[in-house]
Amino acid sequence: MLHAGGVKPLAGIRVLDISRIVSGPTCAWVLAALGAEVIRVEVPGGDLTWNVPPFLGPDGPHRGPRGPRDVPLAPMRRGRSKRSVVIDVKRDEGRALLHRLAAVSDALVENFRPGATARMGIDYETLSALNPRLVYCSITGYGPDGPYRDRASMDLVVQAVSGLMAKTGFEDGPPTKVGVTIGDQVPALYAAIGILSALRQRDVDGRGQYVDVAMLDVLVALLWDEPLDDYEQRGVPERVGNTDPRGAPIGTFQTTDGWIAMVMTAETQWTQLCELMERPDLLTRWKDRRERGAQGAAVNAAVESWTRTVSTDVAIAGLTRIGVACGPVQSAWAARTDPQVAHRGMLENLRHPDLDEPGPFIGPRLPLKLSRGDMRTDPAEPLGASTDAVLRDLLELDDDELRRLHAAGVIESC
Amino acid sequence: MLHAGGVKPLAGIRVLDISRIVSGPTCAWVLAALGAEVIRVEVPGGDLTWNVPPFLGPDGPHRGPRGPRDVPLAPMRRGRSKRSVVIDVKRDEGRALLHRLAAVSDALVENFRPGATARMGIDYETLSALNPRLVYCSITGYGPDGPYRDRASMDLVVQAVSGLMAKTGFEDGPPTKVGVTIGDQVPALYAAIGILSALRQRDVDGRGQYVDVAMLDVLVALLWDEPLDDYEQRGVPERVGNTDPRGAPIGTFQTTDGWIAMVMTAETQWTQLCELMERPDLLTRWKDRRERGAQGAAVNAAVESWTRTVSTDVAIAGLTRIGVACGPVQSAWAARTDPQVAHRGMLENLRHPDLDEPGPFIGPRLPLKLSRGDMRTDPAEPLGASTDAVLRDLLELDDDELRRLHAAGVIESC
Repeated sequence: MLHAGGVKPLAGIRVLDISRIVSGPTCAWVLAALGAEVIRVEVPGGDLTWNVPPFLGPDGPHRGPRGPRDVPLAPMRRGRSKRSVVIDVKRDEGRALLHRLAAVSDALVENFRPGATARMGIDYETLSALNPRLVYCSITGYGPDGPYRDRASMDLVVQAVSGLMAKTGFEDGPPTKVGVTIGDQVPALYAAIGILSALRQRDVDGRGQYVDVAMLDVLVALLWDEPLDDYEQRGVPERVGNTDPRGAPIGTFQTTDGWIAMVMTAETQWTQLCELMERPDLLTRWKDRRERGAQGAAVNAAVESWTRTVSTDVAIAGLTRIGVACGPVQSAWAARTDPQVAHRGMLENLRHPDLDEPGPFIGPRLPLKLSRGDMRTDPAEPLGASTDAVLRDLLELDDDELRRLHAAGVIESC
Repeated sequence: MLHAGGVKPLAGIRVLDISRIVSGPTCAWVLAALGAEVIRVEVPGGDLTWNVPPFLGPDGPHRGPRGPRDVPLAPMRRGRSKRSVVIDVKRDEGRALLHRLAAVSDALVENFRPGATARMGIDYETLSALNPRLVYCSITGYGPDGPYRDRASMDLVVQAVSGLMAKTGFEDGPPTKVGVTIGDQVPALYAAIGILSALRQRDVDGRGQYVDVAMLDVLVALLWDEPLDDYEQRGVPERVGNTDPRGAPIGTFQTTDGWIAMVMTAETQWTQLCELMERPDLLTRWKDRRERGAQGAAVNAAVESWTRTVSTDVAIAGLTRIGVACGPVQSAWAARTDPQVAHRGMLENLRHPDLDEPGPFIGPRLPLKLSRGDMRTDPAEPLGASTDAVLRDLLELDDDELRRLHAAGVIESC
């Protein structure tokens, strides 16, 4: 049913990626992997991620210093299928080039602090006047308006302010950070949805618009997908560790050689689980979902007194046989050798465009498969590798003009 | 710059939502909030979420039993702007109705276990033969193929298997569940991106396709946005609590009345922070980013010896003045009264369509603003409220036929 090959779903859409670090580049990477033409414009030297070793370069991997065609890990992942252009947009001539690129683009992604694009003369008002069809997407910490608009924001901080940290961890432990940059990566997905929706609206009426995604909004929405107000009224603790106040057995359980996670939902499974554990007494002790839910800690402890006697493999096999959702608590590093991850082709060894073979570093593929969509991606380019080509192809600059702009330090290539 | 009003970005797209519980309904809710016409088809009685109190009904809120026009909290949130239809698709006549609805729809979202839709006769092969323009999206735990395809999956389990739990929590503590259903909600966003991309491809070539999103794929991709392979080689611990192995001060810090989160990135901020803390000795002790990163725990402890002497408000005010990204570690419940969340209008009191005033329960709005997009939503409908209207409008069933199907128990309404 699933094929590589086919056409690229977003072919014909040109996206200008003037964003930095995680959220904006991730949004543009999603669009690039789906076949949009993404032109990533960075300032000379690139964003912060260009200075972080290790690097992969024409001579292989190393820890620095970075040579002109070396690519560090973050750009190697998030820069796949993008063209890399370096323009100093803080100079008048650079800004003029960016204006001309925006005039021939369908969408733009940025994640500067509110007000910064206006100071640089590349805000929505300016660019939409030059190109009314442009979809302009801003990802900010708190939004372009409101009392917190000028505060600096980072994933950890927005996790704290939203309440996500207070909701993660154990009841008797501290608020806990989520182990992925959820505050950056999930807003990136909403930004992609916003851009695709605005492009569809433009198909109808011919005009672009401003797409506004705030990290705080996104985390608050993720949290309030649960009825937190009802939980509070009912005295449910704010964070519940690995359990679930709505049922049992649900949680993580120690085995002889590790941990498993288990979620029991169907009523018939409890009967089968008691048989599996050879504990008919538990079946009479907690008869139904409601009784088990009310004594969740005791139910989970009883189940763990069984899991502690068996290996992870034995526990998983037994529980899977009776249809209970379960799995090993695996190391984050385990994905590299997990048979399902391998079958799905979710990790790839990243390539450098100057090398015939992939390098040693791993990156995730886009976790989205379209049966007729060509989802192959190209390796990320070294910083500025397409500066000249893009300015020549899209803006019709000639060699003399390119030389002059290079000499003046307005553009850079490698 | 931002207006309600305007047109609905996804007007003209009809989506059939035959999904259950969290991930599928969330995907369809995102599309509904963006203006797609979403028809939610459920079996008689609805999915599990319809049985969970409290309810909001024509007579106000209560804890049950559920009356025919009562709506529980989960459908009240995820069912906004959808039409609710009840069809028993396990019966031949019900399946035939679903086939006819699929024939006049643009997209379909389902999240059954792999194989279930084939057994019901509503899989991609069947429906795409009836409507080659249909975009058919499946959200599964592990994918429709591969060694784990038949395993039951739940958010907690996929968090465990992906390595997300192993990456969340403290180095000396256990693997920890992320406090939101990240394994359901983030795949829902990829599914929406996949559907919108496939619709764009269909604009070009007139054909639909199969969109495949797996919860495991999505969590693995979120995790491997960091260079985990490089971390392992360098001996970085798998989980690092609230800190970041790449720098300091980064983390959560106790104050006299709570906790704050702080992320220091710019080199100049360290000088200003030492001034603020009146600790010139620290400035000479750790000169640069590299030295601070190498002794992160000591740096964080030194900073906390200052934060412990001031209140959260004083710490935030001082740090904000020097531009350090920071914020209070707030309760998840605090969002209701947070001034920025209020300014952004991110939470709303959910409405029942039979009542003039909103009820007491809170739900999140879509965390995405389009300047010309009409983002107003309608209240969720009671189960089956639009059964007759949808079958009459879209399939041109007459009153006799509707009566017959009701009497035969193939359809239900309220």
